[in-house]
Order: sequence, then C-alpha cells, then structure tokens
Amino acid sequence: MANSPSIEDNIFTRLMANKAFEMFVVTVIILSALVVGAKTYPIPPAALKVLAVLDWVITFIFLIEICIRFIAEPEKKKFFNKAWNVFDTLIVVVSLIPIENGEMALLGRLIRIFRVLRMVSIIPELRMLLNSLVKALPQLGYVMLLMFIIFYIYAAIGSTLFHDINPELWGDITIALLTLFRVMTFEDWTDVMYETMEVYKLSWIFYLTFIFFTAFAFLNMIIGIVVNVLEEEHSREREEAAEASGEPTMFDLQDQLREIQQQLMEMKQEKAQTTDALKSD
Amino acid sequence: MANSPSIEDNIFTRLMANKAFEMFVVTVIILSALVVGAKTYPIPPAALKVLAVLDWVITFIFLIEICIRFIAEPEKKKFFNKAWNVFDTLIVVVSLIPIENGEMALLGRLIRIFRVLRMVSIIPELRMLLNSLVKALPQLGYVMLLMFIIFYIYAAIGSTLFHDINPELWGDITIALLTLFRVMTFEDWTDVMYETMEVYKLSWIFYLTFIFFTAFAFLNMIIGIVVNVLEEEHSREREEAAEASGEPTMFDLQDQLREIQQQLMEMKQEKAQTTDALKSD
Amino acid sequence: MANSPSIEDNIFTRLMANKAFEMFVVTVIILSALVVGAKTYPIPPAALKVLAVLDWVITFIFLIEICIRFIAEPEKKKFFNKAWNVFDTLIVVVSLIPIENGEMALLGRLIRIFRVLRMVSIIPELRMLLNSLVKALPQLGYVMLLMFIIFYIYAAIGSTLFHDINPELWGDITIALLTLFRVMTFEDWTDVMYETMEVYKLSWIFYLTFIFFTAFAFLNMIIGIVVNVLEEEHSREREEAAEASGEPTMFDLQDQLREIQQQLMEMKQEKAQTTDALKSD
Amino acid sequence: MANSPSIEDNIFTRLMANKAFEMFVVTVIILSALVVGAKTYPIPPAALKVLAVLDWVITFIFLIEICIRFIAEPEKKKFFNKAWNVFDTLIVVVSLIPIENGEMALLGRLIRIFRVLRMVSIIPELRMLLNSLVKALPQLGYVMLLMFIIFYIYAAIGSTLFHDINPELWGDITIALLTLFRVMTFEDWTDVMYETMEVYKLSWIFYLTFIFFTAFAFLNMIIGIVVNVLEEEHSREREEAAEASGEPTMFDLQDQLREIQQQLMEMKQEKAQTTDALKSD
Repeated sequence: MANSPSIEDNIFTRLMANKAFEMFVVTVIILSALVVGAKTYPIPPAALKVLAVLDWVITFIFLIEICIRFIAEPEKKKFFNKAWNVFDTLIVVVSLIPIENGEMALLGRLIRIFRVLRMVSIIPELRMLLNSLVKALPQLGYVMLLMFIIFYIYAAIGSTLFHDINPELWGDITIALLTLFRVMTFEDWTDVMYETMEVYKLSWIFYLTFIFFTAFAFLNMIIGIVVNVLEEEHSREREEAAEASGEPTMFDLQDQLREIQQQLMEMKQEKAQTTDALKSD
Repeated sequence: MANSPSIEDNIFTRLMANKAFEMFVVTVIILSALVVGAKTYPIPPAALKVLAVLDWVITFIFLIEICIRFIAEPEKKKFFNKAWNVFDTLIVVVSLIPIENGEMALLGRLIRIFRVLRMVSIIPELRMLLNSLVKALPQLGYVMLLMFIIFYIYAAIGSTLFHDINPELWGDITIALLTLFRVMTFEDWTDVMYETMEVYKLSWIFYLTFIFFTAFAFLNMIIGIVVNVLEEEHSREREEAAEASGEPTMFDLQDQLREIQQQLMEMKQEKAQTTDALKSD
Repeated sequence: MANSPSIEDNIFTRLMANKAFEMFVVTVIILSALVVGAKTYPIPPAALKVLAVLDWVITFIFLIEICIRFIAEPEKKKFFNKAWNVFDTLIVVVSLIPIENGEMALLGRLIRIFRVLRMVSIIPELRMLLNSLVKALPQLGYVMLLMFIIFYIYAAIGSTLFHDINPELWGDITIALLTLFRVMTFEDWTDVMYETMEVYKLSWIFYLTFIFFTAFAFLNMIIGIVVNVLEEEHSREREEAAEASGEPTMFDLQDQLREIQQQLMEMKQEKAQTTDALKSD
Repeated sequence: MANSPSIEDNIFTRLMANKAFEMFVVTVIILSALVVGAKTYPIPPAALKVLAVLDWVITFIFLIEICIRFIAEPEKKKFFNKAWNVFDTLIVVVSLIPIENGEMALLGRLIRIFRVLRMVSIIPELRMLLNSLVKALPQLGYVMLLMFIIFYIYAAIGSTLFHDINPELWGDITIALLTLFRVMTFEDWTDVMYETMEVYKLSWIFYLTFIFFTAFAFLNMIIGIVVNVLEEEHSREREEAAEASGEPTMFDLQDQLREIQQQLMEMKQEKAQTTDALKSD
C-alpha cells in the first residue's frame, strides 16, 4: 500500500487539504447523526434494514477517512499524540465490532451517537471553541473546590438534621448533595424548605445562607473568567499593536533627545576650540 | 400621478422629514396595536363594527404612507432593496386582501398583529437596536452549533435509554430535545430526573453534566458578546478621539525632533564653513 | 417663631449638620419600621395602645424634623424643589390625618409603611444609589420599548390562537402579557406549553422563539448598562487623572519643541549677522 | 516540652514548611470529611466502632498539628490574632469534649462537620479566595441595605393586604419576607400571585414592580462588583507596568527638553560673549 510513499503522501495530503473532501466528511457525519436520530422513532422493519446498511456505509467511509488521515500524516508516531485522532480512531474501531442483541446492542447504539462529536473534530472553529472551554477549566479549579466544600458541609448538616424528615431528599450525603444542587437551581426549593421548617422552624437560615454562599461563589467564578478573558484579550491586542504599527515608543523619543543633547555638547566644545583658535590667531 | 416629479418629490420628501408626519404615523400604529388588542376581548357587535371600520381606515392610512415613501424615494429601484420597506409593503398588501370567515380570518388577524412591528421600522432608534441584535447573531453561530451538537448527543442518549420510562418526555429525538431545553431552563427538571433515576440510578450524571456543559457554553457565549461589544466600542472611541482632538502623536513628536537634529546639523556645517572662511581670511 | 432668623437659622443649620441628630432621626425611622412590622403580628389590645402612642410620637418627631429642615433651608422657595423634601413632607402630612376604621384605616397603615423609605432620604449613600438607578432608566428606554413590542405581538398571537384552550392564561391581551412574563421567568412555562401543544403541535416554536428574543433583548440591555457604566467610569477617571497629576500632555511637549526650534532659528540668524559683522570688519 | 526552644522551634518550623506534612494534614482532613459522610449512611455497629476510633485518631492528629503550629509560631501572642488559628483551635477543642447521647450527640456531630472547613485554612489558594469574598462584602453593604428596605416595604404591604388570603405566606412580616425571597428566585411565584389576584385584581402590579426593583438592584450589585474588580485589576496592572519597565514618562521627556533649552540658552550667552570679545579685539 506504500510502495512509493512520497507520491502517495502527496495525493493524500492534497486530499486532506481539499475543501470538497471536508464537505463530504461533514455530510457523512450529518447523515450519521440523522441515522442516530431516526432510530429513536418507531420504524418499520424495511426502513430498519436501510438504516443498518447506511450504518455500515458510514462506518466504512469513516474507516477510509481515518486511513487517509493516517497516511497523510508525515510522522506516523505523532498521529496518536493528537487527542482528536485518538478519539476518531476509537469511535471507528468500536463501530466495527459486530453488536449482538440485548445489552450490548444498546451500548453499540450509544457509541454510534458519539460519532456526532466528530463534527467538532472536523470543523476547526468548533475544535478551537472546545479547546478554549477546556483551557478555562483549570483556572476555575479552586473555585470549584471551594464550592464543593460548601456543598459538602451543607449536605452533611442537611443529612444529619433532616434525615428523618424526608429520607428521599436527605437520606445520605450523596442524596443530600443532589438535593442541594436542586436548591441552587431554585427548582422547587421552597417545597424542600417548607417541609423541614415544620420540624426545625429556623431551617430557612440553612437554605438562605446556602443560596447566598453558592450564588456568591458562582458570581466570583463568572467575574474571574470575564476578567481573565478581557486581560488576555488586552495583552494580546497590545502586543500586536506594538509590533504592527512601528509607532515610536517613549524610549525612542528619549534616545533621540539624548542624541540632540550630544550634538549640542559637541557644538559647544567645537566652538570653544574655534574661539580658542581664533583667539590664538 | 407623477407629472412634475421634481416638485412632487420635494413635497413628499419634505413630508417624510416632517416630525409631525412621523408622530401621526406612530399614533396610527399605536391605534392599530390597540385595535388588535381590543379584538382579544369579548366585544359587543356594535363595537366590532367600529373596530372593522377602524381597521380599514388604518390599512388605508398605511397604504397612503407607503405610497408617499415610495414617491419620496429618489431612486425607485432601490426602494425594495431595504428590508424594512419590503416588510412594510408586504404587511399593507396582505391587509388589503379581503378575509373571509374560518381559517383565513384567523390568518388575517395574525398578520394584522405584525403591523405593531411597523413601530420598529418607523422609529430609527429601534431599527438600530434590532440591526445590532441581528449583527450579533452570526458571531454566535459556532457557539450555537456547538450547543446544538451537545443537545443532539444528549437527546439521542436520552431517547435511547429513557424511551420506555416516559415516552411523553423521551419518546423520540425531537421530544427529547424539547425536554432538554426544559432541563436547561431548570423548569421542573428534578421531576424529569427523579423519574429516570428510579430505573437508572446513575442517570443524575446525565443531567448534571448536561447542565454543566450548556451553562458553560452559554457563559462563553455571553462573554464572547461582551468582549466583542467592548472591543468595538473601544476601537471606535479611539479612532474618534484621534481624529477629533488633533492631539500630536508620537510620530509628530519624532518628526519634530528630526527637524531639530537637521537644523543642528546645518548649523554645524555652516559654522565649519564660517570658521574655514574666517581662517582663510 | 422667626423673630431673629439669623440666629435661629444658625442653630437649626448646626443641628442639621450634627451627626447625633442624624443618628437620632435614623433611629426613629428604624423604630417606625419596627412599629409597622409589629402591627402585622396578632397583638394584645394593651400592646396595640402602646403602638398607637408610639405612632403619634414618631409622627410628631418627623413633623418637628421637617420643620427644622425647612427653617434651616436658607432659601425657603427652593425647599420644595428637591423631590426628597416633597416626599418627606407628604409622608408626614398624610400621617397627621386622623384615620377612621374601615377602608381608610388600611390606607393609613399602608402610607405609614412608606415612612421606611425616609431611610433612603436621610442616608446620602442610599440617595446616591437610588439616583444612579433612576438615571440608568432612560438609557434603557428603547430596549424596554422593543421588549414591550415583542411582548405585545406574542401576547396578541397567543390570545388569538390559544384563547379557547385556557382562557385563564390567554383570555385577553393583558392576561396573555402576564402569562408571557411568567414564561420569561421560566416559572412552570412547560405546563403552559404542553397545554397548547395538545391542540397546536407546533406551538413550541411560539415559546422557544419568545424565550430567545426576550433573553437576547435582556442580554443586550445588561451589556448596554455595563458598557455605559464602564465608559462613564473610564472618562471620569481619565479627566480626574489629567487634572490631578499635572502630567505634561503631548501638546505641552510639542510646544516645548517648537520653542527649541524657535531658539535655534534665532541663533542661526544671529550668527549670520555676527558672521556678516565679522566679515564686514 | 520546651527545654531548648531554639532547636525545637527549628524542627517544628521546618516541619510546617514541609510539603509532605501539608499533604498528610490534607489527607487527614479528607479522611475526616469521609468519616462525616459515612455516618449519614445506615451502618452496622462494627463499622460504627471503627468510625468512632477513626474519629478519635483524627481529633488526636489535629490536636498534635495545632500544637506543632503553635510551637512553630515565633511570637506566641500573635498566634490567636489570626482568625484561622482561632477557628482551628476551637474546632479541635470542641471535638475533645466527650459527647453523650441525645441532643448533645447531634451537636457534636455537627461541629465535626466543620472540620471540613479546615481544608480552607490549610490550602493558601482557598484562603485567598475566601478572603477576597469577605473583602467584597462591605462594598455591597449599601446595595444590600437598599435591597432590604425594598424587601421590608413590600413585606409590610404584603402582610397588611394579603394577611387573610393566605396566612402561611403572608401571616406576619418575617413570613412575608421569606415569601418575597421566594418570589425573587422565581420559585412558583405565579401560584402566590394568582392566589392574591383572586381578591385584589391588580395585585400583579405588586409582584411585577417588586421583581423589577430587586432585579434592578441585583444587576447594579453585579455591575458594581465587576467594575470594582476591573478597576483594581487595572490600577494594579498599571503600577506594576510602570515600576517594572522603567519606561521614561512624559515628565522625563519634559525634563530632558528643559535641559536642551538650558543648553541652548547657555550657548547663546556664550556666543554673545565670544562675539563681544572678538569685537573688542
């Protein structure tokens, strides 16, 4: 398959850069998404067969596309260093496994759904967007940790005090964490509160302080992101502007002024010499 | 109708620019809005007749107004290039079609409602506001696409797994998409979750990750707009300030310094000549 | 009461500026707020009498305070130009009207509640905060108008189409406007939607587009405020910095450079004269 | 215990700075959190005994850690000046009190929950985050006060007018405040409204104005924080930049220009003298 790699590489590399090829792959992905969607409707057996065939055709096209991408890669070893290539290969390989009925069939269908995510791996703008989202995650790490600590403390208090009032909401700490997440989204949180207020009259303090703390932490998180994004934007902008315009800086002006002072100094000395010379004449 | 266009044009153009004329049209639009509103109340037949007459009067005034605007337009061909003119004409023309009873009557009434939108076409500030909203849309295109992909994947998973639990919420992929939109707005989302948690104990992961992803994407979208708006605002401001103030730039100062250096250079050369001349004396 | 106004004015003006006097009035306002709050509890007749007495004492103190403020005002005519003075006087005058039982008693109690607002009129920081809120309102005028137009159109469509499905939600245009406000706050909006979807299968388009439009307009409003506030903040900051620091501007530097050029020019001319003089020697 | 303090201090101070020691304490805190969580599940008596032992071990480790920290502190008196040290000591001391059954046991368990907060006291990044949250609070003081006044007035009106409609929601002013907080979070607020609208048809004005006022005040609060954070960020950035770069300021350039003018002036005078000298020759 790779007798004359230099020529073949050229063909595949050119194919990769081809807009029409990209459009074709995007079309196949959309088709695969539609097939996934269609399967959620009740469908006659005939259509089911058509869908199964389509499924195999799509898997086959994806397999070929991955092969082309792999051959087009100049350094084969670096191919699997890119997370998206690993993801794409995984999706295709798993799709190739013949799925039987029962539990496995469901799993096979679920994996096919993730083929829609290939849309992100193929469109550069979406890939960039997702990368920026992933990049923002570690910055928020400590805020997330603080929020989890707040959640954990309130969940521990909640499941200790309200355990017997409603075990379905406060039975143990994991259920309590879920209930608190619900309270944070304001989803029927008063029902939860009124129930516990019948036993502990002051339990509204529990809910109100929780809402304040989480809302506050969340606000801080948002502001943190905004400030960060704006800052990066500004510094990037400033650097670009400085490089591009060639506008003289304060340093340039200072240098120029120094030169003038130097010139004046020289003139003075010269004149003194001239005067001396004239005088000595 | 256009024997002496130059004179007529003047009259109509002046009419168009007239504030009183604009106020009159705005008043008629408000009246048409009130008529539309009045029809939603149970009204005696006598008042109904008055409303019908009013309706025709309004349609007639709108027709005349469009004609005036068309005549006032210097280049007739460009009239329909403006989206708002097409919209206004369409609304008036459709209002002219006599509506019978039944289905068509309802449609006629619905179209008359859109006459309220003429408020936007007549008040420049509102037109600008709507334009800026429309302009912001394409920027958000990719974020919207990413969000739709997230929605689609979750809807496909949801309708595959939860199909039998509640077909009204997870029956097929379109219903599942609607259910997920509901979850995103936090509207009774715990009811949806608790129902599926009875079968799949870990399905809270499905909802929590979905809420995180969409909230994150949405946040990104908002920040994207804010940063963009601020950036445009800044660059516009900077340009205006630079043009208006006539403040000397760093470049101007640099040029001036170069001139001084030039002058000093000339002085030096001149003096050398003078000294030479004196010496040669 | 005003035999020797110059002396009396001094006493009252000094009283006005006194921190202790301000603290005393704030205390009385808090007391009046507590009295208002206490009346919402079931209270024994004895306590009721105490509250009634307290009420008269508070009203009396307020009356005296207004009189002091009026006397302390150097120009009596300007006193009622300030909106807060008018508000304070109105609250006190209305409190003086003896209230009978029945409907009027309720009104009297309600008016006494607004005495809490005197807190805003007495604390300068709160007054400033409220002023800034009021100032922000006109800026948002057009966005509000656009939003109302969107609401009106959707309410007209809703009350036309869904009138017979649920008259309590879509009976006429005002009820429909309230229902749409409810949809905008995401409050049980799916219940409203599912009900109409049983008749009009595609009515989810109505709700989703409405949510998008209002959310968008609302977003625009927020950004509008933020950008505006930041801009004002910046320009204020810049002006202050420029005035305070006395930092030389680009203009100053340019002038200085011009002076140097002038000096050089003069030197050149002078030298030419000297050389001529020397030559002519 | 402190025969040769200088040597011991060194050991303990080094231990404090040791990363492994910090990791060990963090691990113990996480373990204590897990123990607290485990107790919310129904557990067999055997496991309960293990947990009780673990509890004592953790308390003991915490006690030793506090002692080490106290000994490592160079100035013993300043130890309790730090709020976090006081908090840590309190948590440990209270944990040492043997808890009996009944009411006290519950309190003992609740106090143990707060040991999770030690995570904040031990990780510097979390401590900084919490400090910044606390710092932001006083800035928001007046907005909070204004919001409370709005709440209080609406609660007083609500409990006066709607008292008899639903005493559970509007019974007295504190219950009314809670109901209004619920309305602000949009939690089933329409149910509250529809109930009162049956008696007072115009009571929707009450709810809508309340939502507008609180939403507005809240918006102002957010913007206030954002502007503040950005401002601080900017000023900090500017100062850093100015200090670090050593970039010449406008003042520096102005000084340099003055020097040049001085030089020119001197040259002029000198030349005049030379010319005079030459002439006198």
